[in-house]
Amino acid sequence: MAFINDNYLELKDSYLFATIAKKVNEFVAANPDKKLIRMGIGDVTLPLTPSVLTAMHEAIDEMGKKESFKGYGPEQGYDFLRNAVKAYYERINVSLDADEIFISDGAKSDVGNITDIFGNENIVMIPDPVYPVYVDTNIMSGREIVYLDSNAENNFLPMPPQDDEMADLIYLCSPNNPTGSVYNREQLTAWVNYAKQSGAIILYDAAYEAYINDPSLPRSIFEIEGAKECAIEFCSLSKTAGFTGTRCGYTIVPKALVGYNTDGDEVVVNKLWNRRQTTKFNGVPYIIQKGAAAVFTESGQKEIKDNVAYYMENARIIAQAMKEKGIEYVGGDNSPYIWLKCPNGMGSWEFFDYLLNEIAVVGTPGAGFGANGEGYFRLTAFGGREATIEAMERFKSI
Amino acid sequence: MAFINDNYLELKDSYLFATIAKKVNEFVAANPDKKLIRMGIGDVTLPLTPSVLTAMHEAIDEMGKKESFKGYGPEQGYDFLRNAVKAYYERINVSLDADEIFISDGAKSDVGNITDIFGNENIVMIPDPVYPVYVDTNIMSGREIVYLDSNAENNFLPMPPQDDEMADLIYLCSPNNPTGSVYNREQLTAWVNYAKQSGAIILYDAAYEAYINDPSLPRSIFEIEGAKECAIEFCSLSKTAGFTGTRCGYTIVPKALVGYNTDGDEVVVNKLWNRRQTTKFNGVPYIIQKGAAAVFTESGQKEIKDNVAYYMENARIIAQAMKEKGIEYVGGDNSPYIWLKCPNGMGSWEFFDYLLNEIAVVGTPGAGFGANGEGYFRLTAFGGREATIEAMERFKSI
Repeated sequence: MAFINDNYLELKDSYLFATIAKKVNEFVAANPDKKLIRMGIGDVTLPLTPSVLTAMHEAIDEMGKKESFKGYGPEQGYDFLRNAVKAYYERINVSLDADEIFISDGAKSDVGNITDIFGNENIVMIPDPVYPVYVDTNIMSGREIVYLDSNAENNFLPMPPQDDEMADLIYLCSPNNPTGSVYNREQLTAWVNYAKQSGAIILYDAAYEAYINDPSLPRSIFEIEGAKECAIEFCSLSKTAGFTGTRCGYTIVPKALVGYNTDGDEVVVNKLWNRRQTTKFNGVPYIIQKGAAAVFTESGQKEIKDNVAYYMENARIIAQAMKEKGIEYVGGDNSPYIWLKCPNGMGSWEFFDYLLNEIAVVGTPGAGFGANGEGYFRLTAFGGREATIEAMERFKSI
Repeated sequence: MAFINDNYLELKDSYLFATIAKKVNEFVAANPDKKLIRMGIGDVTLPLTPSVLTAMHEAIDEMGKKESFKGYGPEQGYDFLRNAVKAYYERINVSLDADEIFISDGAKSDVGNITDIFGNENIVMIPDPVYPVYVDTNIMSGREIVYLDSNAENNFLPMPPQDDEMADLIYLCSPNNPTGSVYNREQLTAWVNYAKQSGAIILYDAAYEAYINDPSLPRSIFEIEGAKECAIEFCSLSKTAGFTGTRCGYTIVPKALVGYNTDGDEVVVNKLWNRRQTTKFNGVPYIIQKGAAAVFTESGQKEIKDNVAYYMENARIIAQAMKEKGIEYVGGDNSPYIWLKCPNGMGSWEFFDYLLNEIAVVGTPGAGFGANGEGYFRLTAFGGREATIEAMERFKSI
């Protein structure tokens, strides 16, 4: 008799985006004449850039000729792309070996699959509010979760608790989704020291690193001394280069990082992840890897910097409107997200309904990201310029 | 203190292809003048077909324009591709709902990840010899494995054991990798009945279905009555359409399939897999899905039938050589693999060395696929025509 994984029954159904879609559809049906502006979903809108397009067209032509056709590639990614990522890290003085870099089909897959290589007895520390994948993937493996309050008191940048025995695996995301807050060097150093002291491992989600403007802020946890002994970093081209529908990311598992078996012996984590990936994954399409490598060329970097600047100008426009309205917010300066406090003590969903009905603007209720998100609201800078300006004009009118 | 998943320490290192590579490299270094012919790795050599190339070029152009750019797609795959797969199954009178079809980046990922949704207390039945991923992924989750002898006595088509309480999850692969053997309708019916009787679930790997010539042989387990209540089917475009480096497959999880929670209540497996995929996967690249959909068009089907016919003519040439040499073998008629008994009582590796040194032909030692593979050897039909003919001429000369 085939038994299911009972932990799946502990998962809460994810109603957030389904509920948003339902409310929006009802509104549109009732108000066919009103122009809806969507600022809810964290998806990019600018097309892939010329360097990426050219590289992928060329790769397809290669795949169409017997002499240059590519079959199975290395599960960890082609050297041309691993070396491009390696060079990308060198710009921030982080020196990696190519075999510490694993090319994947995106941060979501790796953030989820990384749970495979760790024991289910680990206690997991997760900030609240948070990207729901961290929570759900650990519920799926039946782990105990300790939540870390992320709130206005700590500027949505929770710091290590006093007790250094509280957790074995720690999720951090900076720039943060959903709050847009960013750890500085001192704060991240405190986390690294905490992890090293307790033998914990930090799972560091750097998917939004390209949005950091302030050169004093770390773009990788590996800019912090000692991080290679206590952290894994997930990164993605989704928000950096518009790859949300093209699917390519990379995960850094330093060879200096060890976990412990139940006897307390050290085990090299890089080897475990390599074994996981070679067994359950067959690599990213050659065509996509060629497109991804183009992101790291000189022309590719220029193009994506222009795109990031475009979105960050949207963020500035949104932030400016919040200031004018006297609405408290964080994010938006080194992140494409603006996390605002719903005015007049409104709840997240109450404010959602208010914005939808009054000005036909859709955002994301903070409550969807965890208990501490109640009373907050997320707006994203990934829309078009015109729509962003119009949405903020409407915002200011209410 | 971060604990690793101790089950990973139970994995045997996979030396098979590494050892082959080492031996081949040594041979090439010592014999620079000899022309090596590789018939070992199960990777295709014909390029992607015109319909696929055109569709992907067009998709890239769409991704380059703001109006047609695609961001996040549905994790389960676009409707255009799910519906194409649905229609593909209709040709063999298997009627599926689109939401029973999950598009993935290949059968290897899904075969590995499917273990997520089942309890670790399940006993797993795996034929020997076998594709090593079935074994390794279950060792990773700490499950008890019962091996099923696949050998000359049962034509490498093991049938259900007498005891119907032996296993909860059953892996079957037909046409088989590595043996090339194919279950007929009666045999597969016996398996379906066995699974239904015991409440077990069959994990059916149909990655080589396109190689079935004999119209009486089932190309899907869902051609067997009752299979929707006891089976999941994995399929892939890797061998069908040369997608080994392009990465797209599909997994069928019928909505009629249930597993049991520890209280013995029924749980719909389709829902669990949907939750797993929406949480830990972000879908296959739009560009790749467009290429995959082209495989199912009229022109695409014609092109891939030509490719399969090309490889099957190679298989016929290999089989003919075996017959002429009086070497026992199975496979090659409805499968791209020829599984031969090493002549003169040689062991798998002994025969590997013999072929390499005598005629510079590389194959795969059967021992690499499990204990019952010892004394056997796998040749693949995925090479070029000229090389296949030459390899068999050399074969006949020894």
